Amino acid sequence: MLLDTVNVLNKVNNPQDLKTLSISELNTLADEMRELIIKKVNTTGGHMGPNLGILEATIAFHYVFNSPYDKIVFDVSHQCYPHKILTGRKEGFLNPDSYLKYTGYTAPEESEHDLFKVGHTSTAASLACGLAKARDLKGEDGNVVALVGDGSLSGGEALEGLDNAATLNSNIIIIINDNDMSIAENHGGVYKNLQELRETNGQSQNNFFKTLGFDYYYVDEGNNIEKLIETFKQVKDIDHPTIVHIHTQKGHGLKVAEENKEAFHWIMPGTLDENSSENTEYPESYSSLTLDFILNKAKEDEKLMVVNAATPGVFGFSSDIRAKLGKHYTDVGIAEEHAVAYSSALAKGGAKPIFAVMSSFVQRTYDQMSQDLCLNNSPLAMLVYWGGISGQDCTHLCVFDIPLISNIPNMVYLAPTNKEEYLSMLEYAYNQNERPVAIRVPNCDLISTGSSDNTDYSQLNKYKMVEKGGKVAIIGLGDFFELGRKAKEEIKNRFGIDSTLINPRFITGIDEDMLESLKSDHDVVITLENGVLDGGFGEKITRFYGNSNMKVLNYGAKKEFTDRVPENILYDRYRLKPELIAEDLKSLI
Amino acid sequence: MLLDTVNVLNKVNNPQDLKTLSISELNTLADEMRELIIKKVNTTGGHMGPNLGILEATIAFHYVFNSPYDKIVFDVSHQCYPHKILTGRKEGFLNPDSYLKYTGYTAPEESEHDLFKVGHTSTAASLACGLAKARDLKGEDGNVVALVGDGSLSGGEALEGLDNAATLNSNIIIIINDNDMSIAENHGGVYKNLQELRETNGQSQNNFFKTLGFDYYYVDEGNNIEKLIETFKQVKDIDHPTIVHIHTQKGHGLKVAEENKEAFHWIMPGTLDENSSENTEYPESYSSLTLDFILNKAKEDEKLMVVNAATPGVFGFSSDIRAKLGKHYTDVGIAEEHAVAYSSALAKGGAKPIFAVMSSFVQRTYDQMSQDLCLNNSPLAMLVYWGGISGQDCTHLCVFDIPLISNIPNMVYLAPTNKEEYLSMLEYAYNQNERPVAIRVPNCDLISTGSSDNTDYSQLNKYKMVEKGGKVAIIGLGDFFELGRKAKEEIKNRFGIDSTLINPRFITGIDEDMLESLKSDHDVVITLENGVLDGGFGEKITRFYGNSNMKVLNYGAKKEFTDRVPENILYDRYRLKPELIAEDLKSLI
Repeated sequence: MLLDTVNVLNKVNNPQDLKTLSISELNTLADEMRELIIKKVNTTGGHMGPNLGILEATIAFHYVFNSPYDKIVFDVSHQCYPHKILTGRKEGFLNPDSYLKYTGYTAPEESEHDLFKVGHTSTAASLACGLAKARDLKGEDGNVVALVGDGSLSGGEALEGLDNAATLNSNIIIIINDNDMSIAENHGGVYKNLQELRETNGQSQNNFFKTLGFDYYYVDEGNNIEKLIETFKQVKDIDHPTIVHIHTQKGHGLKVAEENKEAFHWIMPGTLDENSSENTEYPESYSSLTLDFILNKAKEDEKLMVVNAATPGVFGFSSDIRAKLGKHYTDVGIAEEHAVAYSSALAKGGAKPIFAVMSSFVQRTYDQMSQDLCLNNSPLAMLVYWGGISGQDCTHLCVFDIPLISNIPNMVYLAPTNKEEYLSMLEYAYNQNERPVAIRVPNCDLISTGSSDNTDYSQLNKYKMVEKGGKVAIIGLGDFFELGRKAKEEIKNRFGIDSTLINPRFITGIDEDMLESLKSDHDVVITLENGVLDGGFGEKITRFYGNSNMKVLNYGAKKEFTDRVPENILYDRYRLKPELIAEDLKSLI
Repeated sequence: MLLDTVNVLNKVNNPQDLKTLSISELNTLADEMRELIIKKVNTTGGHMGPNLGILEATIAFHYVFNSPYDKIVFDVSHQCYPHKILTGRKEGFLNPDSYLKYTGYTAPEESEHDLFKVGHTSTAASLACGLAKARDLKGEDGNVVALVGDGSLSGGEALEGLDNAATLNSNIIIIINDNDMSIAENHGGVYKNLQELRETNGQSQNNFFKTLGFDYYYVDEGNNIEKLIETFKQVKDIDHPTIVHIHTQKGHGLKVAEENKEAFHWIMPGTLDENSSENTEYPESYSSLTLDFILNKAKEDEKLMVVNAATPGVFGFSSDIRAKLGKHYTDVGIAEEHAVAYSSALAKGGAKPIFAVMSSFVQRTYDQMSQDLCLNNSPLAMLVYWGGISGQDCTHLCVFDIPLISNIPNMVYLAPTNKEEYLSMLEYAYNQNERPVAIRVPNCDLISTGSSDNTDYSQLNKYKMVEKGGKVAIIGLGDFFELGRKAKEEIKNRFGIDSTLINPRFITGIDEDMLESLKSDHDVVITLENGVLDGGFGEKITRFYGNSNMKVLNYGAKKEFTDRVPENILYDRYRLKPELIAEDLKSLI
């Protein structure tokens, strides 16, 4: 679609341009924007359903309120595409060459209409509360509006924020964008209340928000611009904490997305194209191994409990698999803190919990890992997915889990390097009854040795010397073991040195005997880890050798928030390439 | 009081012994237990108000339910003293010689009636939920009961847990112990609802718990054993999620505690004694400096906002000072996640927030520090109190904040070593507008140099060489700088070496120039930090020197949960003494 084919959008360069449009023009604008979003997301991949569902509300918001004087805070912000189109960034949707120009989340550096970088859920009520309080302190006015999806309401930070926002004696408006879905279906008592409110057109006296002290408005037709404008006008400049509960349809206006809400929450490029098929056979992967493991356990062990916090798709827990697991599966909703405490207690109660979590989201539950889990030494098997350096958006980086998890006492954090090790570690973590065991599921293509791994992982912190050499020892952690193998080859080719190659397997401890033994015939130890160096694995090796003559080179990510920087560039920056490692070694051998 | 003077308690060795007592005997038992608790807590220090308030409910619980078959999970567990007395541990209250035998929190190693080690708030609903689900999976029965104080309800984990507990299709009973107080007064919308429920004898239709799907019972006389027994009998073996909201009195039965609820939440030894006075003049301390700083800012800067999460006493925010600060002070309740996100947004909105938090509780808000605060580079001044090695209970250790905070990108974490530096850092953190700055408030007696510190802390990661020597350099972080000075003396006395003494000031970065310069005339660098070594400050120094000939010795705490181990023993264990450090140095010089 070219600019001259969007009849209304071509007149809209900023929110002020909406003010003079008729309802009919606003509706046309919505249609034009919908087409752009569908085309762009189907080209680049991205969040489809959330953006189609919030389109009309975004138009109505900018029609009624005056951004940036009135402030809008997006929760998660993966529903900000319509907002970007209306706030000076339509080029990123009109021009395929500019599709990647803007991030998929709010970004203050892109526009004064974006207040925060946001990508984790459940933060908007708190953030809005701070903006409103700052406004009041300075004696200013203007509206502060938070846009919060129903899925985010189960998160502790959202509930803390709402509880506090309700006590402000001034303007704060929380729009609850209720499409009756998280990524998958919602879980938690509050969702029954939302349902009751929808079914009573907002009239039920049993009202979660009112119990907290909010004034409350309900809009049943949450994709009807005219109705939304009417209510937004009513609450604009209101002088007390107010909820506007709008009932929207996820994927609105795209039939396949309306009918397949979970699949169309976030899509891969080309999903809508004719050749795309949902029935593709996927090759064996670390995810498929996990699923097979879990489904087998479900057949034989009544005590299995799989716990997940609202991201079933990440782990391949499709609706079919969830149905198969039945009572052995709990989705706690977006509630990672609860997920860990709950899992700890499941274990204490004699169940056998497996908690699957993304590296980026495990950040939400440090204190629960420390206090509820590790201090109590509960035997949980925790699977950490997607850990590693990547070209991700800055809000979803997965490089911080090693410092976060591995410095907690009692935790055992394992890093498998191949299929057989992973399966063996899974069995150990699941069957043992002594301690929390986390596994960093490799974030790479499956590697199989073909011979089963019979290691006894209850013997903690025993590293595996895969190849014994001399002068240089390479310790390659988890999915960087293969980088270690390649570095070994490069060092052999370049310097003629047969390096020692070590698979440490344990992130959380030092194999003092093996490290001590290296002192006799090695001068340099190289550590490789797929995560941030600061507070990570390699530094512990270096500390061990601090009082010796051993030189140690640590490789991993720098402590920084990277934002959609291609992986290859990061590997160069961090010198995570065999030839660069060999280069660094030159002066030490 | 000796055993033969407690007429009823001498018959009670475990909960079963309660079953045959009359109501009159149970009331006498309460009186006897109250006297024991008052005497013990006044001798050892500890939680007074919470235990006096929950005494009758504990007796009623054990009279009606069958622990440990029926399971009780304490939230925070600082109200477990009556439970300990009734579950085989009365010796710890009868015999002054045994006063310190049992910890002040639930402890599974002490008794089968204690399910979890707990000391942080807001966890009980989640933990109970896991126990209940495990029970159901195994096809067993029995009651699972959580005892949650009203103060804990504002915490995200509590709300996540309640939201999930409400969806269980089986027995789970949450007792809300509502004494209308957190440590100080409560803050948050939910507390207005609790008030409404108390004022309507539980009859209001506007009921927070019912909106989540709970069945609901109310007991107005929450210190009346007979009334409690009546209701507990009604809910015992109930087959669905149920709230029992009991209205108790904090400090019940001790007039001074009833009248001074905040002061008697936790008391120092001897508080009840005649010679004790509340009007003691305290000497100048890091806390008093902070208070003076804040009160001065409040006079001159309309933008000041002091944020605190329900522990005002820790920072000396007495009710007088809170009143003085007025609109410049927010207590968000137990809601550390919200506190950080809220503070970040206060800063974005142009206010000047100061968030004061205890090291142990900053653990509850890692993701918010990373995403809401540091990713957005909001200029918050965060004051971290009590960080360091201590003889604390295992649930309140303060040694993990350096790895937790300092490995987050964009954060600047400062470690002052004396009064003047602290004041200078405070001014910098407060006045700057560029980034989040945390300060680790020294956890030791005040040290003053007498000359003001004019360092420009916006020049990041510039260490201060306090004394230039040779061969050995000592880097003493924060309140361990003085240990560095003593180690320097010891090294001089023992080896005749004039060591270099460095005050790094910045925890979050390396002064590469200074460290590089040490290479020319030093052989050994010693790092000292008052916290866990794993993931901490010293390891980063060691990594810097990994490819050089410099030897590095890192001193700090081992990665372990210690439980009331005296500080002096820990200092020995970790070799944090000048003579031990010199001993380690011997082989390297």
